[in-house]
Amino acid sequence: MENIRDKYPLLAGLDSPADLRKLPESELPKVCGELRGFIIDSLANNPGHFASSLGAVELTVALHYVFSTPVDKIVWDVGHQAYGHKILTGRRDRFHTNRKLGGIKPFPSPEESEYDSFIAGHASNSISAALGLETSARLRNSDERVVAVIGDGSMSGGLAFEGLNNLSNTRNNLLVIINDNNMSISNSVGGMNSLLVSIHSSKFYNKVRYSIAQFLRKLHILNEKRANAIIRFNNGLKSLIFRQKNFFESMSIRYFGPVDGHDVIALVHMLRSIKDMTGPHILHIHTKKGKGWAPAEADATAWHQPGLYDINTGERIVAEGGTPRFQDVFGETLVEMARANEKIVGITPAMPTGCSMHKLGEVFPDRFFDVGIAEGHAVTFSAGLAKGGMLPFCNVYSSFMQRGYDNLIHDAALQKLDIVFCLDRAGLVGEDGPTHHGSFDLAYLRPIPGITIASPYDECELRRLMYTAAQPGAGTFVIRYPRGKGSLKEWRCPLETVEVGKGRRMKSGKDVALITIGPLGKVMESVVAEAGKQGVSVAHYDMRFLKPIDEEILREVGENFKYIVTLEDGTVKGGLGTAVAEYMSTHGYSPNIEIMGIPDKFIEHGTPEELYRLCGMDKDSVLKMLLKSK
Amino acid sequence: MENIRDKYPLLAGLDSPADLRKLPESELPKVCGELRGFIIDSLANNPGHFASSLGAVELTVALHYVFSTPVDKIVWDVGHQAYGHKILTGRRDRFHTNRKLGGIKPFPSPEESEYDSFIAGHASNSISAALGLETSARLRNSDERVVAVIGDGSMSGGLAFEGLNNLSNTRNNLLVIINDNNMSISNSVGGMNSLLVSIHSSKFYNKVRYSIAQFLRKLHILNEKRANAIIRFNNGLKSLIFRQKNFFESMSIRYFGPVDGHDVIALVHMLRSIKDMTGPHILHIHTKKGKGWAPAEADATAWHQPGLYDINTGERIVAEGGTPRFQDVFGETLVEMARANEKIVGITPAMPTGCSMHKLGEVFPDRFFDVGIAEGHAVTFSAGLAKGGMLPFCNVYSSFMQRGYDNLIHDAALQKLDIVFCLDRAGLVGEDGPTHHGSFDLAYLRPIPGITIASPYDECELRRLMYTAAQPGAGTFVIRYPRGKGSLKEWRCPLETVEVGKGRRMKSGKDVALITIGPLGKVMESVVAEAGKQGVSVAHYDMRFLKPIDEEILREVGENFKYIVTLEDGTVKGGLGTAVAEYMSTHGYSPNIEIMGIPDKFIEHGTPEELYRLCGMDKDSVLKMLLKSK
Repeated sequence: MENIRDKYPLLAGLDSPADLRKLPESELPKVCGELRGFIIDSLANNPGHFASSLGAVELTVALHYVFSTPVDKIVWDVGHQAYGHKILTGRRDRFHTNRKLGGIKPFPSPEESEYDSFIAGHASNSISAALGLETSARLRNSDERVVAVIGDGSMSGGLAFEGLNNLSNTRNNLLVIINDNNMSISNSVGGMNSLLVSIHSSKFYNKVRYSIAQFLRKLHILNEKRANAIIRFNNGLKSLIFRQKNFFESMSIRYFGPVDGHDVIALVHMLRSIKDMTGPHILHIHTKKGKGWAPAEADATAWHQPGLYDINTGERIVAEGGTPRFQDVFGETLVEMARANEKIVGITPAMPTGCSMHKLGEVFPDRFFDVGIAEGHAVTFSAGLAKGGMLPFCNVYSSFMQRGYDNLIHDAALQKLDIVFCLDRAGLVGEDGPTHHGSFDLAYLRPIPGITIASPYDECELRRLMYTAAQPGAGTFVIRYPRGKGSLKEWRCPLETVEVGKGRRMKSGKDVALITIGPLGKVMESVVAEAGKQGVSVAHYDMRFLKPIDEEILREVGENFKYIVTLEDGTVKGGLGTAVAEYMSTHGYSPNIEIMGIPDKFIEHGTPEELYRLCGMDKDSVLKMLLKSK
Repeated sequence: MENIRDKYPLLAGLDSPADLRKLPESELPKVCGELRGFIIDSLANNPGHFASSLGAVELTVALHYVFSTPVDKIVWDVGHQAYGHKILTGRRDRFHTNRKLGGIKPFPSPEESEYDSFIAGHASNSISAALGLETSARLRNSDERVVAVIGDGSMSGGLAFEGLNNLSNTRNNLLVIINDNNMSISNSVGGMNSLLVSIHSSKFYNKVRYSIAQFLRKLHILNEKRANAIIRFNNGLKSLIFRQKNFFESMSIRYFGPVDGHDVIALVHMLRSIKDMTGPHILHIHTKKGKGWAPAEADATAWHQPGLYDINTGERIVAEGGTPRFQDVFGETLVEMARANEKIVGITPAMPTGCSMHKLGEVFPDRFFDVGIAEGHAVTFSAGLAKGGMLPFCNVYSSFMQRGYDNLIHDAALQKLDIVFCLDRAGLVGEDGPTHHGSFDLAYLRPIPGITIASPYDECELRRLMYTAAQPGAGTFVIRYPRGKGSLKEWRCPLETVEVGKGRRMKSGKDVALITIGPLGKVMESVVAEAGKQGVSVAHYDMRFLKPIDEEILREVGENFKYIVTLEDGTVKGGLGTAVAEYMSTHGYSPNIEIMGIPDKFIEHGTPEELYRLCGMDKDSVLKMLLKSK
């Protein structure tokens, strides 16, 4: 770590926020500069979430400087922005292990550090979680403070709204900081002027305001309820006086801002003045994603998670060649189908680039809907579109679809609507870790009556499944597929239908039946061949559909095999293996079944290869299992 | 139907909204009076949702009078309020079958009537769904209009916010009517004055405003985007001029109101003047739940779904005696435990009376949190409370927990937090039908790593499970139980722990093993005895825990039985039966298994008894299945 000591002398001395708090205020801009440099240096060689953390450098330093962490608690929303926080809270020297197996976790996690007050990963949970922490502190008569830091993107999630809505219901002193880095909410709260800011945040103003209520309360003239009503009334009065009312004030939450989120000294002063305030309050700061790294400032989307880049030139290092990603195939095929069928529309909750639906948006902007981080709405809006006669393709990452589960059951499946749900990032996703693995979809989808659940063997199959799902009367049709590259170079096969509920025997055999679903089946072709060389004749079936499941295949397997291995990129409880076991047990067959898949525990982060090995879903493990039939 | 013709002469002539639209405006108050009387008469003998529908009578009449239903579409949120709508849209003469098996459905359903534009049941979905319908109409170049009607209670749901948030993003002409019947949102939008209302809603004002943009658009001076920006700018300008900005206006949605929702003539005029407006707009009306029926006006909560009542005296007919409900046992036990353990807090999303947590609120108001219709927040807020050192009991109806599924995985289970989730209304709920059956919880919970899933055999067991779940380190612990009465008169057994993951052999036997979970097991005790009389010796096991499952019992069963019957009040896919099949198939046992439970389809409404029979989960069906082992 010599290098660090030379290049970042101040940062090198900061082993915990307590060290930071010993510095004079005047040194803070320098700390910010070093922290920013350290992040840029680190991520060049060890990729991660880039632009968000750069934008939050000053805020991070100011928070740890003003608040007594870890007694005071910071709850980061999503956690893309929390690298600076990790580095300042004792994880600087291990930061080069970020996102690596056994290394620093991709998102804040209380398991890793007492400074991580709550888990982050799925957006919009910070306000609800922080309100819980704050309320518990109040019940314990602790005077610790709790701060939630939420990006403006996360503010579009219904959960954030539910949290806000309850801020004004419950007695609490929560501070919510809105880190607004793309102006998307600035219209709604932009009416505030700087005069108002300074008045709002002055200690005097608030002291007077609250001391009146406190005073009356002490005299027992007022009960709690009445006192709170007066506080609220004061809020109302203020907005009347200043002829101003914004989104937050209209919810009876005190609002400060917007202020420059890159002026660390000003932030420190602002935080100090509102730190001990009673009642819920919001501080709205403006920051720039990618601040301090010109290429990222210019294109924050590309630099959200840029992969490797050259620290000298600022160029991203993009690996070229190889087979296309499932995402590319989805995006291109959707455009192709949309050209031929004008009923097709695309909906995605804030993942247009990630899932490649932006391609549809480029060609048919009127038929493409990015609804923001709002999975529930994405599903129900799709259902409305379908009821109105359109054919929606709704693309949501598998683990985020957990947010739209009720909508899928209540608004889509129950009405038997023709909707295609494409679940991207299904299965183990790798470095993003346990919050992001798409482990559960097969299991949580299978009990839903009447829907179709499919997973493609390869890219051509993805195209055929998309085309099949788009046939009139196909109903609620789910296609799940993993992140990343497929297996085919030539994937532009003709768009043809496949029979719904029909799997395929890929290879005959007599010793053991291997039943798979999805691209993992393709991966195991070489294993099946190797098992043959080693004297075990494997019959390989690609089910293609989990629901309706191909009972003809299951009967064939039940009648001919005493030993069955199932393999899926999903949890071992409730998915394909379970469906096979259910069928066999209830149809008079009695094979031994080995269910291979994601074990019944939360899987940490690491490269996909490492994780598949860890979960016993790699080629060696499958081979070993097949050879057991000897 | 003579009776109707005499008592409600106008209503008797209204076979469809087209008939209504033939009446002169001056007759509408009379129609409202008759409609209200008809609802009161009907529900006295055939219970249903009472107070909400009475409050929406004038709105219902005005909507069908002004809009050309069913070409124009009304989307009702929740649908508690839609009885008037059902009666006016051709279902008057069948309304006496409301909520009965094979009769009128409990909530709006497109399957039943073309006037029901979208399914209703779970709150807060109307804006998203209606936006989908509206957007599809725009894409089809249809000039039909779409109206969403949402109660203020449903406005607290995150989904409603996500819908609103997208209203201002998308080009659409949706009208959202907020039926505000308890003033809970009036603080946030109450600043509007009647002057503003009249200005806003005048056709002239809007004509001028939009014609400017239209004109410029026609001249091709403006592209679409620019024109919309000008419209938005106008909105901003108006709020600047009138020095007013509310919640909705701050989201760039035009707002009208609040107006009296019981003045049908005024409503008709208002709706006419905003009917053809371009852009999303909100009409806020004030109504009174239970309007026109004094007892309901006085206590809308009791009269939300009052059961039978005496039409002459206005008294509710409450059946006394019998065994207590699981709800009572939950509520009383929670208070008892909270007295002994000050860490215990209670959280429920708008179901305090339904689940009896209001009892906690009465004794410990500071430790009781009704967070409104906001299941996701309820779960994540509970997780925050747990992380802060409290012990939350979070009570959510089983089917509504689908809304908190991601929160359960991401915020509770992944952090291994000590939280007790009580899932009320698990299993078939009866008359509320497919949107409300708690069918899926066992299946969607089982794949979640590390959690405990339990269901009590009887009321004492519920108490013991609650006590067990409250032990330190018990982790994320789910207890699911049905609506309604249990089996014990004496339920105040001592609070003792049970061993987590241990089931019980209730009775030995040798011909067949019956494996059950939950109170259905208790119900079947007599069936087990009857089977014995008929010569079949049944071993009966109550598993108590679905997860971790008692493998000792499963081994015992696997070794001793060739025939197993499983029974659960949940879907046959993914629950107890599945777990048994999984275990047997992967542990070298090969019994035949019959999985009894809720079939893999959506189950309609009816009495619980009717539905259990329909699903083959009644005593006769189970007996028949047990006797098969002969």
